[in-house]
Amino acid sequence: MKSVRAFAPATVANVACGFDVLGFALDKPGDIVTASLVSESGVSISAIHGDEGRLPQAAEKNTAGLAVIELLKSLGSNVGIRLELNKQLPLCSGLGSSGASAVAALLAVNELLDNPMNRKELLPFAVRAEELACGSAHADNVAPSLLGGFTLVRSSAPLDVVHLDFPKSLCCVVFHPELELSTEDSRTVLPGQVELAAAVQQSANLGALVSGLAREDFSLISRALQDVLAEPFRKRLVPHFDTAKEAALNAGALGCSLSGSGPSIFALCASRQVAKQAGQGIQNVYLGAEIAGTTYVSGINSTGGYILSGDNTL
Amino acid sequence: MKSVRAFAPATVANVACGFDVLGFALDKPGDIVTASLVSESGVSISAIHGDEGRLPQAAEKNTAGLAVIELLKSLGSNVGIRLELNKQLPLCSGLGSSGASAVAALLAVNELLDNPMNRKELLPFAVRAEELACGSAHADNVAPSLLGGFTLVRSSAPLDVVHLDFPKSLCCVVFHPELELSTEDSRTVLPGQVELAAAVQQSANLGALVSGLAREDFSLISRALQDVLAEPFRKRLVPHFDTAKEAALNAGALGCSLSGSGPSIFALCASRQVAKQAGQGIQNVYLGAEIAGTTYVSGINSTGGYILSGDNTL
Repeated sequence: MKSVRAFAPATVANVACGFDVLGFALDKPGDIVTASLVSESGVSISAIHGDEGRLPQAAEKNTAGLAVIELLKSLGSNVGIRLELNKQLPLCSGLGSSGASAVAALLAVNELLDNPMNRKELLPFAVRAEELACGSAHADNVAPSLLGGFTLVRSSAPLDVVHLDFPKSLCCVVFHPELELSTEDSRTVLPGQVELAAAVQQSANLGALVSGLAREDFSLISRALQDVLAEPFRKRLVPHFDTAKEAALNAGALGCSLSGSGPSIFALCASRQVAKQAGQGIQNVYLGAEIAGTTYVSGINSTGGYILSGDNTL
Repeated sequence: MKSVRAFAPATVANVACGFDVLGFALDKPGDIVTASLVSESGVSISAIHGDEGRLPQAAEKNTAGLAVIELLKSLGSNVGIRLELNKQLPLCSGLGSSGASAVAALLAVNELLDNPMNRKELLPFAVRAEELACGSAHADNVAPSLLGGFTLVRSSAPLDVVHLDFPKSLCCVVFHPELELSTEDSRTVLPGQVELAAAVQQSANLGALVSGLAREDFSLISRALQDVLAEPFRKRLVPHFDTAKEAALNAGALGCSLSGSGPSIFALCASRQVAKQAGQGIQNVYLGAEIAGTTYVSGINSTGGYILSGDNTL
């Protein structure tokens, strides 16, 4: 039976001043999906590991399944695909878990079918799957998971994703406290309207961040990593956020904010050494509050998800 | 009598998606200020040419005079300075006229005093003078007039101005219709609050524009040059704006919006040839409506204002 295994990385969306439009991919962790050609047409999910039974196994209700259904529909193919998901990302953590599964599934199936599409062409199917998970079509997690690096979603409809230059030495730490937060909760705390002055400030910081990343100006990156639109509201849902952020900045992080809509907290750092120290700082705050969690220190993934193996004999 | 003449260029602020934070300098037109050392201490203005008698001649009420007063105060100097202004920019046009006079005056006086300050150090005095003209401390005109190129004001307090990379072949056309608009009027038409979605869209476009300028990606620059925060409201104050913008885009301009708060209209173009055609298109719209105006076609000034001559014998 012909099978392909693919990996797609976790992502940090929003990135402080890039609320709803910016994201970047981590080297690790990520999700792994194995896609196999089967005789019975249609898409099925044979198993999901690592989700503690919480994700729907019906293909059309699962982001990985739905992304593949949409891809096959677009290709006019009635081939049979069986997916097996290895979730290595915590669910509802703000690390782009649903998006990573969709991207890994798309990469595996595309490879299985001898790559009828390039990566940019695969993106809309991942976005459709995100629509299922989040209720709205956001590309800020799936774009970096699929394309790698820092991506800016200039427009969702039509989809216009910009790949940004960034310093290769940049390193990230993400702390995932064992608190769960649904994307829906974290959306409802946001006001529908914002002060014009706040909108201007956010745009200035995002413009400055894009420039700082391109010029490898770490001081500018640091000054720009400020979110005035979402963080002030969402941080209320994440206990000890302010203290954790202060610990990360005191350890030398360039900036620190919620990853996606939280509860994970990320800090961007100029080196792996600083990222480790910032992670230690954040972790200690939560340890002190008797909240367990997982710390991930990772470089930035430049290329997006990738094929782990293709095998005809599995 | 020791004298120095300095030129400071007109500027286009806002630049569509860069509302309140972005600006760039034109090669021409600009204002010229002659500063002379005189025996009587304090700052005076001996003459203002080209303003049809509309600008205040009292130094502390004029942006050029006030900028110099603030500079001398900071230097602890009680030297006597006499200024002569040659306004070559229309007033209240959206071309940064008040800022250009302040910048030219600062450059001339700084040279006259053997350059005690560098350009970045001069900026706060120009911003103080703008506060006088606009009622709020904006650097989006004076920063490009003083520093050249495209500047992004990441923060006004503390002042944090970022110099952006941009394609040197970029060309601009500005049409100044003979309609006057005070900055105050154009501020009052703006809502105090905006939709969160609009804020996000504006920030995405600004981030994309910064990336497009740095990578010399003209298609991206063009897609990003959209203002959803100010133009929809301010264009109501500028008759025929939509038709003029359409004419510029039809002529091949990358983007077109109000210069500053208007009524001038600018279009950014990939070449001088296209800028001329876009200017012709805009001009024809206003000619058809029997509204006179002036068209300026200019490259982007990369270095900011400059000294025209220093002379001890004037």
